[in-house]
Amino acid sequence: MSFQTVRESNLRTVLRTVREHAPCSRAAVAAATGLNKTTVSSLVSDLMTRGLVRETGETSQRRVGRPGVLLAPDERSVAAIGLEVNVDFLSVVAVDLLHRELVHRHVPLDARSAGARACAHRIADTLREVTEAPELRERTVVGVSVAVPGLIDAPSGTVRRAPNLGWREVPLRELLLSGLAGSALAGATVLVDNDANLGAMAEYRFGPLAGLPDLVYVTGEVGIGAGVLVGGELLRGAGGFAGEIGHLELDADGPECSCGRRGCLEALAGIGAILRAALPDLVPGRPLSGAEVAELVAVAVDRASAGEPTAVAALERAGTWLGRGVATLVNVVNPGAVVLGGYFVPMARWLVPRCREAARAGSFAPEAGGCRVEPSDLGMSAASRGGAAVMIHGLESGTLPLPQP
Amino acid sequence: MSFQTVRESNLRTVLRTVREHAPCSRAAVAAATGLNKTTVSSLVSDLMTRGLVRETGETSQRRVGRPGVLLAPDERSVAAIGLEVNVDFLSVVAVDLLHRELVHRHVPLDARSAGARACAHRIADTLREVTEAPELRERTVVGVSVAVPGLIDAPSGTVRRAPNLGWREVPLRELLLSGLAGSALAGATVLVDNDANLGAMAEYRFGPLAGLPDLVYVTGEVGIGAGVLVGGELLRGAGGFAGEIGHLELDADGPECSCGRRGCLEALAGIGAILRAALPDLVPGRPLSGAEVAELVAVAVDRASAGEPTAVAALERAGTWLGRGVATLVNVVNPGAVVLGGYFVPMARWLVPRCREAARAGSFAPEAGGCRVEPSDLGMSAASRGGAAVMIHGLESGTLPLPQP
Repeated sequence: MSFQTVRESNLRTVLRTVREHAPCSRAAVAAATGLNKTTVSSLVSDLMTRGLVRETGETSQRRVGRPGVLLAPDERSVAAIGLEVNVDFLSVVAVDLLHRELVHRHVPLDARSAGARACAHRIADTLREVTEAPELRERTVVGVSVAVPGLIDAPSGTVRRAPNLGWREVPLRELLLSGLAGSALAGATVLVDNDANLGAMAEYRFGPLAGLPDLVYVTGEVGIGAGVLVGGELLRGAGGFAGEIGHLELDADGPECSCGRRGCLEALAGIGAILRAALPDLVPGRPLSGAEVAELVAVAVDRASAGEPTAVAALERAGTWLGRGVATLVNVVNPGAVVLGGYFVPMARWLVPRCREAARAGSFAPEAGGCRVEPSDLGMSAASRGGAAVMIHGLESGTLPLPQP
Repeated sequence: MSFQTVRESNLRTVLRTVREHAPCSRAAVAAATGLNKTTVSSLVSDLMTRGLVRETGETSQRRVGRPGVLLAPDERSVAAIGLEVNVDFLSVVAVDLLHRELVHRHVPLDARSAGARACAHRIADTLREVTEAPELRERTVVGVSVAVPGLIDAPSGTVRRAPNLGWREVPLRELLLSGLAGSALAGATVLVDNDANLGAMAEYRFGPLAGLPDLVYVTGEVGIGAGVLVGGELLRGAGGFAGEIGHLELDADGPECSCGRRGCLEALAGIGAILRAALPDLVPGRPLSGAEVAELVAVAVDRASAGEPTAVAALERAGTWLGRGVATLVNVVNPGAVVLGGYFVPMARWLVPRCREAARAGSFAPEAGGCRVEPSDLGMSAASRGGAAVMIHGLESGTLPLPQP
């Protein structure tokens, strides 16, 4: 490890310690980290110059010596952006160092019709716009996370396959980096990851089950994916392709799936499938446009609320299929909870009871191995919030460069 | 941490260091651990009294100072035992500190007919007999691992459910401890774990894919279970029930399973199912006894080798179902390899090609996410070997008490 790296690693340790103990004095940081006080003072000055730590203006009560000036994370200077690409919209959120939301945008975008390159342009434009918002104009954006519903090669930021977007081998990170050249984001780190993985990170940090180490987040968009946490860490698998539960084949004679197979969970209980079954009079034979999906979800929920039998039956049937998927998760990874996100949230009243029932029936372990099934309360932006959180966390964990002094 | 615990932890560290660097001097151990030489000398003396470390009789070549006496693990004094309970036999292995096999026994036992308590007696008797074998008589047995095909509460050593043994809520560890009272094993640690988990540990240590961090071992007995390694660690799940792939429902209209459901992988591709399909003229309508299974497997392999169409078709069909199970593993955890064990090994010629094909066809990730499918070469005793290895490793990791001086 070079001198620079040791110092950087110490900077990150001090940043983490200040967050965990804030408000706290330099002496307290020294005690907690085992670094000597001179080193801590130098590191704190450095972090202050970088806009990551600030003095609160208060002092500690000490029995001996000078009172210590108290430190806290500097929530005024940096920001991180999380963006998610859905079939029918982009969701963008910017947060400060304390994970507080600064900006939130919902941008309708029919990703499938637009095509990958046009989408990349639109994403870059959206990121530029967000950066120019008054809440961000004075801040350094330390990193941008982009969530995509598909198989992602995270190291290169390439989307290998995203059938619901119609994408295949799209070098998204590369396209975004060139799309952001010359903008305020030109130097920022850009990472691309799977939407379910980032949703799981959001649930682990902010959801009602935050801190549960074996937690699965299931996306409820046109596609279905899962972010699987094992002991608080993302299960990525040997090739980075873990969690593709949307393509579990549950019914060999089932409907055709976007992936070309038949009877996948997504073809049975994805939002498209649910809407076709719930609203046979409204849903056309062609694939739904992004904008149509959101509208039709509201109609389906209205009809089910009014007790309309076709809508109720369709939602309950989808809940049973989802439960079959949850049972597979229980039999393979035995999570402590499965959180249903996205459009599954407004439909939870009908989906969740059937889902729990089928999960219990299909699990070898008694009572579904203790696995809870709950709707998310993070709304439609779990993946973007999780992505922004991963960026902020990267300052402490070392996956993200520290902002320059 | 008490003084005792710090010293114990240092003893384990020195033991591990000696194994990793053997033959090595006390000075080399001091250098590798950061402990001072006096402490190392004291810890080494202690480990020698406990029969865990010995002097090789050789000395190191050093440019300055006295030549150092070289140390190595003492393979002469202790042993660990791994036993596995199968539907039709017990397999027992005892190994030394270097994981070398000292004793190996295959004990036919119809576990299902015998019942849980009689089995526990038989297991205790078998363990006593092994301990009295000439190869073990002079050794201290540090631990006994018992592998069972079922859901295990590992902390208490209770078998929650083992449908193929007909067991439910059997306090196996407790029964064994009382069965071993008064024997040479009275003080030994006894742990009960799932057979597939211990088989996976064996593959990770000794198999042709040893060291592959994301590896799944699939048991091929009357039951089918999986031991799932993620980053070299066993995936146990929130309740300890992960890896129950035998009860993935693959065909809603399929045959009845021992668990009471229909169309589980085990009911389609477990050894019982394979034999019924391959040898319709030989297999009776009643459940097979343990002894019959082994004989019939040999007949099925003979017939398939001779090209008998019913046998070949049955094995190939089972291979396809296994591939469906592997595809589920790929879609959920994306392992780097799946190793097929037990009776699947002699049938591999017919099972494996179809299994690979179906795994590719059913995986969302291209080329089954890079997952290899290979037969095990650890024979019918993977779980017992893995269990013994876990015991030996427990001396270093701290899960097992050190033998008394």
